[in-house]
Amino acid sequence: MSEPRAYRIRTATPDDAPRIAELLHAFNTEFDTATPGVEVLTRRLRSLLGGTATFAIVGGEPAVGVALVTVRPNVWSDAPVALLDEMYVDPAERGGGLGSEIMRVMIEACQRLGVGEIEINGDASDADAMRFYEAHGFTGSDPATGERALYYSRSI
Amino acid sequence: MSEPRAYRIRTATPDDAPRIAELLHAFNTEFDTATPGVEVLTRRLRSLLGGTATFAIVGGEPAVGVALVTVRPNVWSDAPVALLDEMYVDPAERGGGLGSEIMRVMIEACQRLGVGEIEINGDASDADAMRFYEAHGFTGSDPATGERALYYSRSI
Repeated sequence: MSEPRAYRIRTATPDDAPRIAELLHAFNTEFDTATPGVEVLTRRLRSLLGGTATFAIVGGEPAVGVALVTVRPNVWSDAPVALLDEMYVDPAERGGGLGSEIMRVMIEACQRLGVGEIEINGDASDADAMRFYEAHGFTGSDPATGERALYYSRSI
Repeated sequence: MSEPRAYRIRTATPDDAPRIAELLHAFNTEFDTATPGVEVLTRRLRSLLGGTATFAIVGGEPAVGVALVTVRPNVWSDAPVALLDEMYVDPAERGGGLGSEIMRVMIEACQRLGVGEIEINGDASDADAMRFYEAHGFTGSDPATGERALYYSRSI
Protein backbone atom coordinates (compact mmCIF):
# COMPACT_ATOMS: atom_id res chain seq x y z
CA MET A 1 0.00 0.00 0.00
CA SER A 2 1.40 3.40 -0.98
CA GLU A 3 1.49 6.44 1.31
CA PRO A 4 -2.04 7.72 2.05
CA ARG A 5 -2.77 10.86 0.04
CA ALA A 6 -4.89 13.72 1.34
CA TYR A 7 -8.26 13.68 -0.38
CA ARG A 8 -11.14 15.95 0.39
CA ILE A 9 -14.12 13.69 1.10
CA ARG A 10 -17.59 15.22 1.14
CA THR A 11 -21.29 14.65 0.44
CA ALA A 12 -22.07 15.33 -3.22
CA THR A 13 -24.53 17.95 -4.44
CA PRO A 14 -26.58 17.77 -7.67
CA ASP A 15 -23.79 19.82 -9.31
CA ASP A 16 -21.50 16.79 -8.89
CA ALA A 17 -23.77 14.76 -11.16
CA PRO A 18 -21.62 15.06 -14.34
CA ARG A 19 -18.41 13.88 -12.63
CA ILE A 20 -20.13 11.05 -10.72
CA ALA A 21 -21.71 9.99 -14.02
CA GLU A 22 -18.23 9.75 -15.57
CA LEU A 23 -17.01 7.61 -12.66
CA LEU A 24 -20.03 5.26 -12.77
CA HIS A 25 -19.72 4.98 -16.55
CA ALA A 26 -16.01 4.11 -16.13
CA PHE A 27 -16.98 1.59 -13.40
CA ASN A 28 -19.30 -0.37 -15.67
CA THR A 29 -16.96 -0.06 -18.63
CA GLU A 30 -14.09 -1.48 -16.53
CA PHE A 31 -16.23 -4.45 -15.49
CA ASP A 32 -17.81 -5.05 -18.94
CA THR A 33 -21.28 -4.17 -17.71
CA ALA A 34 -23.83 -2.26 -19.78
CA THR A 35 -24.04 1.49 -19.10
CA PRO A 36 -26.60 3.99 -20.35
CA GLY A 37 -23.79 6.52 -20.93
CA VAL A 38 -22.58 9.65 -19.16
CA GLU A 39 -25.37 11.94 -20.40
CA VAL A 40 -28.22 9.73 -19.16
CA LEU A 41 -26.43 9.04 -15.86
CA THR A 42 -25.87 12.77 -15.36
CA ARG A 43 -29.57 13.50 -15.82
CA ARG A 44 -30.58 10.76 -13.39
CA LEU A 45 -27.96 11.69 -10.78
CA ARG A 46 -28.93 15.37 -10.89
CA SER A 47 -32.49 14.33 -10.05
CA LEU A 48 -31.58 11.63 -7.49
CA LEU A 49 -29.04 13.79 -5.62
CA GLY A 50 -31.65 16.54 -5.33
CA GLY A 51 -34.02 14.16 -3.50
CA THR A 52 -33.90 12.52 -0.09
CA ALA A 53 -33.74 8.82 -1.07
CA THR A 54 -30.22 8.97 -2.57
CA PHE A 55 -26.92 10.50 -1.49
CA ALA A 56 -23.33 10.20 -2.67
CA ILE A 57 -19.94 10.63 -1.02
CA VAL A 58 -17.14 11.80 -3.31
CA GLY A 59 -13.39 11.99 -2.74
CA GLY A 60 -10.87 14.18 -4.58
CA GLU A 61 -11.22 17.41 -6.59
CA PRO A 62 -12.22 16.55 -9.23
CA ALA A 63 -13.78 13.45 -7.68
CA VAL A 64 -11.82 10.25 -8.32
CA GLY A 65 -13.89 8.03 -6.03
CA VAL A 66 -17.57 7.77 -5.21
CA ALA A 67 -20.04 5.88 -3.01
CA LEU A 68 -23.71 5.99 -4.06
CA VAL A 69 -26.27 5.18 -1.36
CA THR A 70 -30.08 4.82 -1.27
CA VAL A 71 -32.00 5.17 1.98
CA ARG A 72 -35.42 3.62 2.57
CA PRO A 73 -37.87 3.23 5.45
CA ASN A 74 -38.54 -0.16 7.03
CA VAL A 75 -41.13 -1.62 9.33
CA TRP A 76 -38.90 -3.10 12.04
CA SER A 77 -37.36 0.17 13.19
CA ASP A 78 -37.97 3.90 13.02
CA ALA A 79 -34.37 4.06 11.74
CA PRO A 80 -34.13 3.87 7.96
CA VAL A 81 -32.03 1.27 6.12
CA ALA A 82 -29.24 2.36 3.75
CA LEU A 83 -27.96 0.38 0.77
CA LEU A 84 -24.50 1.05 -0.66
CA ASP A 85 -25.57 0.71 -4.31
CA GLU A 86 -22.21 1.50 -5.93
CA MET A 87 -18.66 2.20 -4.87
CA TYR A 88 -15.86 3.03 -7.30
CA VAL A 89 -12.34 4.44 -7.18
CA ASP A 90 -10.46 5.47 -10.31
CA PRO A 91 -7.85 2.74 -11.03
CA ALA A 92 -5.00 5.31 -10.95
CA GLU A 93 -5.98 6.28 -7.38
CA ARG A 94 -6.24 2.81 -5.86
CA GLY A 95 -3.99 1.59 -3.06
CA GLY A 96 -3.84 5.01 -1.38
CA GLY A 97 -6.66 4.45 1.08
CA LEU A 98 -9.28 6.54 -0.72
CA GLY A 99 -11.84 3.70 -0.74
CA SER A 100 -11.53 3.26 3.01
CA GLU A 101 -11.82 7.02 3.59
CA ILE A 102 -14.98 7.18 1.45
CA MET A 103 -16.43 4.17 3.29
CA ARG A 104 -15.71 5.80 6.67
CA VAL A 105 -17.32 9.10 5.66
CA MET A 106 -20.30 7.21 4.13
CA ILE A 107 -20.89 5.40 7.45
CA GLU A 108 -20.67 8.74 9.32
CA ALA A 109 -23.20 10.26 6.91
CA CYS A 110 -25.54 7.32 7.58
CA GLN A 111 -25.16 7.89 11.33
CA ARG A 112 -26.12 11.56 10.91
CA LEU A 113 -29.23 10.45 8.97
CA GLY A 114 -30.23 8.13 11.83
CA VAL A 115 -29.73 5.01 9.71
CA GLY A 116 -29.83 1.76 11.71
CA GLU A 117 -28.45 -0.69 9.17
CA ILE A 118 -26.26 -0.43 6.06
CA GLU A 119 -26.50 -3.13 3.39
CA ILE A 120 -24.31 -4.10 0.42
CA ASN A 121 -25.07 -6.62 -2.31
CA GLY A 122 -21.95 -8.35 -3.61
CA ASP A 123 -20.70 -11.16 -5.80
CA ALA A 124 -18.94 -14.21 -4.34
CA SER A 125 -16.29 -14.00 -7.08
CA ASP A 126 -15.09 -10.60 -5.86
CA ALA A 127 -12.97 -11.67 -2.89
CA ASP A 128 -11.24 -8.27 -2.61
CA ALA A 129 -14.57 -6.49 -2.24
CA MET A 130 -15.76 -9.01 0.36
CA ARG A 131 -12.57 -8.50 2.42
CA PHE A 132 -12.96 -4.74 2.10
CA TYR A 133 -16.56 -4.87 3.40
CA GLU A 134 -15.58 -7.14 6.30
CA ALA A 135 -12.67 -4.83 7.19
CA HIS A 136 -15.27 -2.06 7.52
CA GLY A 137 -17.49 -4.01 9.91
CA PHE A 138 -19.89 -5.66 7.48
CA THR A 139 -20.86 -9.30 7.82
CA GLY A 140 -22.04 -11.70 5.12
CA SER A 141 -23.79 -13.96 7.60
CA ASP A 142 -27.18 -13.74 9.24
CA PRO A 143 -26.43 -12.71 12.85
CA ALA A 144 -29.24 -14.98 14.13
CA THR A 145 -28.31 -18.19 12.27
CA GLY A 146 -24.66 -17.68 11.28
CA GLU A 147 -25.66 -18.80 7.78
CA ARG A 148 -24.51 -17.11 4.57
CA ALA A 149 -26.87 -14.25 3.66
CA LEU A 150 -27.92 -14.43 0.02
CA TYR A 151 -29.30 -12.00 -2.51
CA TYR A 152 -31.97 -13.04 -5.03
CA SER A 153 -33.20 -10.97 -7.94
CA ARG A 154 -35.57 -11.16 -10.87
CA SER A 155 -35.90 -8.79 -13.82
CA ILE A 156 -39.43 -7.98 -14.95
CA MET B 1 -50.19 -29.95 -1.34
CA SER B 2 -53.88 -29.55 -0.49
CA GLU B 3 -56.53 -28.25 -2.86
CA PRO B 4 -55.99 -24.53 -3.68
CA ARG B 5 -58.44 -22.36 -1.76
CA ALA B 6 -59.95 -19.19 -3.16
CA TYR B 7 -58.34 -16.19 -1.48
CA ARG B 8 -58.96 -12.59 -2.33
CA ILE B 9 -55.53 -11.06 -3.03
CA ARG B 10 -55.22 -7.28 -3.15
CA THR B 11 -53.00 -4.28 -2.48
CA ALA B 12 -53.27 -3.19 1.14
CA THR B 13 -54.43 0.26 2.27
CA PRO B 14 -53.34 2.06 5.47
CA ASP B 15 -56.49 0.62 7.09
CA ASP B 16 -54.92 -2.84 6.80
CA ALA B 17 -52.07 -1.76 9.09
CA PRO B 18 -53.43 -3.43 12.29
CA ARG B 19 -53.88 -6.86 10.66
CA ILE B 20 -50.55 -6.74 8.79
CA ALA B 21 -48.90 -5.76 12.07
CA GLU B 22 -50.38 -8.90 13.69
CA LEU B 23 -49.03 -11.06 10.85
CA LEU B 24 -45.52 -9.53 10.97
CA HIS B 25 -45.47 -9.83 14.75
CA ALA B 26 -46.46 -13.53 14.41
CA PHE B 27 -43.74 -13.94 11.74
CA ASN B 28 -40.95 -12.76 14.01
CA THR B 29 -42.37 -14.60 17.00
CA GLU B 30 -42.47 -17.86 14.97
CA PHE B 31 -38.82 -17.40 13.97
CA ASP B 32 -37.59 -16.23 17.40
CA THR B 33 -36.69 -12.76 16.11
CA ALA B 34 -37.21 -9.58 18.11
CA THR B 35 -40.39 -7.64 17.33
CA PRO B 36 -41.38 -4.15 18.48
CA GLY B 37 -44.95 -5.42 19.02
CA VAL B 38 -48.26 -5.02 17.22
CA GLU B 39 -48.96 -1.46 18.36
CA VAL B 40 -45.65 -0.03 17.13
CA LEU B 41 -45.84 -2.02 13.88
CA THR B 42 -49.39 -0.76 13.28
CA ARG B 43 -48.29 2.85 13.66
CA ARG B 44 -45.36 2.39 11.29
CA LEU B 45 -47.37 0.46 8.70
CA ARG B 46 -50.14 3.07 8.71
CA SER B 47 -47.54 5.68 7.84
CA LEU B 48 -45.56 3.54 5.36
CA LEU B 49 -48.64 2.28 3.47
CA GLY B 50 -49.81 5.88 3.07
CA GLY B 51 -46.57 6.78 1.27
CA THR B 52 -45.14 5.80 -2.10
CA ALA B 53 -41.96 3.93 -1.01
CA THR B 54 -43.78 0.95 0.53
CA PHE B 55 -46.68 -1.25 -0.52
CA ALA B 56 -48.15 -4.51 0.73
CA ILE B 57 -50.12 -7.32 -0.89
CA VAL B 58 -52.53 -9.17 1.41
CA GLY B 59 -54.45 -12.41 0.88
CA GLY B 60 -57.62 -13.54 2.67
CA GLU B 61 -60.31 -11.65 4.60
CA PRO B 62 -59.12 -11.11 7.26
CA ALA B 63 -55.63 -11.24 5.76
CA VAL B 64 -53.76 -14.47 6.52
CA GLY B 65 -50.80 -13.77 4.25
CA VAL B 66 -48.78 -10.68 3.39
CA ALA B 67 -45.92 -9.46 1.21
CA LEU B 68 -44.28 -6.17 2.20
CA VAL B 69 -42.32 -4.37 -0.52
CA THR B 70 -40.19 -1.20 -0.66
CA VAL B 71 -39.53 0.59 -3.94
CA ARG B 72 -36.52 2.84 -4.56
CA PRO B 73 -34.98 4.72 -7.47
CA ASN B 74 -31.65 3.66 -8.97
CA VAL B 75 -29.09 5.19 -11.27
CA TRP B 76 -28.82 2.46 -13.89
CA SER B 77 -32.40 2.64 -15.12
CA ASP B 78 -35.40 4.94 -15.04
CA ALA B 79 -37.26 1.89 -13.73
CA PRO B 80 -37.28 1.69 -9.92
CA VAL B 81 -36.02 -1.35 -7.98
CA ALA B 82 -38.34 -3.22 -5.60
CA LEU B 83 -37.26 -5.21 -2.55
CA LEU B 84 -39.51 -7.90 -1.07
CA ASP B 85 -38.76 -7.04 2.56
CA GLU B 86 -41.07 -9.56 4.19
CA MET B 87 -43.37 -12.38 3.18
CA TYR B 88 -45.46 -14.38 5.62
CA VAL B 89 -48.37 -16.81 5.50
CA ASP B 90 -50.22 -17.91 8.64
CA PRO B 91 -49.08 -21.48 9.48
CA ALA B 92 -52.69 -22.76 9.36
CA GLU B 93 -53.03 -21.52 5.76
CA ARG B 94 -49.81 -22.98 4.32
CA GLY B 95 -49.77 -25.59 1.56
CA GLY B 96 -52.83 -24.17 -0.19
CA GLY B 97 -50.95 -22.00 -2.67
CA LEU B 98 -51.58 -18.67 -0.95
CA GLY B 99 -47.88 -17.76 -0.90
CA SER B 100 -47.58 -18.33 -4.64
CA GLU B 101 -50.71 -16.31 -5.31
CA ILE B 102 -49.41 -13.41 -3.22
CA MET B 103 -46.04 -13.60 -5.00
CA ARG B 104 -47.75 -13.54 -8.41
CA VAL B 105 -49.91 -10.53 -7.50
CA MET B 106 -46.86 -8.78 -5.98
CA ILE B 107 -44.94 -9.20 -9.25
CA GLU B 108 -47.95 -7.86 -11.20
CA ALA B 109 -48.12 -4.85 -8.87
CA CYS B 110 -44.41 -4.19 -9.50
CA GLN B 111 -45.03 -4.36 -13.25
CA ARG B 112 -47.80 -1.77 -12.94
CA LEU B 113 -45.38 0.50 -11.02
CA GLY B 114 -42.82 0.20 -13.84
CA VAL B 115 -40.34 -1.68 -11.62
CA GLY B 116 -37.42 -3.18 -13.56
CA GLU B 117 -35.97 -5.50 -10.93
CA ILE B 118 -37.26 -7.22 -7.79
CA GLU B 119 -34.82 -8.23 -5.06
CA ILE B 120 -35.05 -10.55 -2.04
CA ASN B 121 -32.51 -11.01 0.73
CA GLY B 122 -32.47 -14.55 2.11
CA ASP B 123 -30.64 -16.92 4.38
CA ALA B 124 -28.76 -19.94 3.02
CA SER B 125 -30.24 -22.11 5.79
CA ASP B 126 -33.79 -21.59 4.52
CA ALA B 127 -33.82 -24.04 1.60
CA ASP B 128 -37.62 -23.94 1.28
CA ALA B 129 -37.61 -20.18 0.82
CA MET B 130 -34.78 -20.39 -1.74
CA ARG B 131 -36.73 -23.00 -3.76
CA PHE B 132 -39.86 -20.86 -3.55
CA TYR B 133 -38.01 -17.80 -4.88
CA GLU B 134 -36.45 -19.80 -7.72
CA ALA B 135 -39.85 -21.28 -8.63
CA HIS B 136 -41.03 -17.69 -9.06
CA GLY B 137 -38.24 -16.73 -11.44
CA PHE B 138 -35.68 -15.34 -8.99
CA THR B 139 -32.00 -16.23 -9.26
CA GLY B 140 -29.37 -16.28 -6.53
CA SER B 141 -26.50 -15.85 -8.99
CA ASP B 142 -25.06 -12.80 -10.68
CA PRO B 143 -26.28 -13.05 -14.31
CA ALA B 144 -22.93 -11.68 -15.56
CA THR B 145 -20.59 -13.96 -13.62
CA GLY B 146 -22.76 -16.93 -12.61
CA GLU B 147 -21.36 -16.49 -9.09
CA ARG B 148 -23.42 -16.63 -5.90
CA ALA B 149 -24.85 -13.19 -5.10
CA LEU B 150 -24.25 -12.27 -1.46
CA TYR B 151 -25.76 -9.85 1.00
CA TYR B 152 -23.63 -7.92 3.51
CA SER B 153 -24.90 -5.78 6.35
CA ARG B 154 -23.66 -3.71 9.26
CA SER B 155 -25.62 -2.22 12.15
CA ILE B 156 -24.66 1.29 13.20
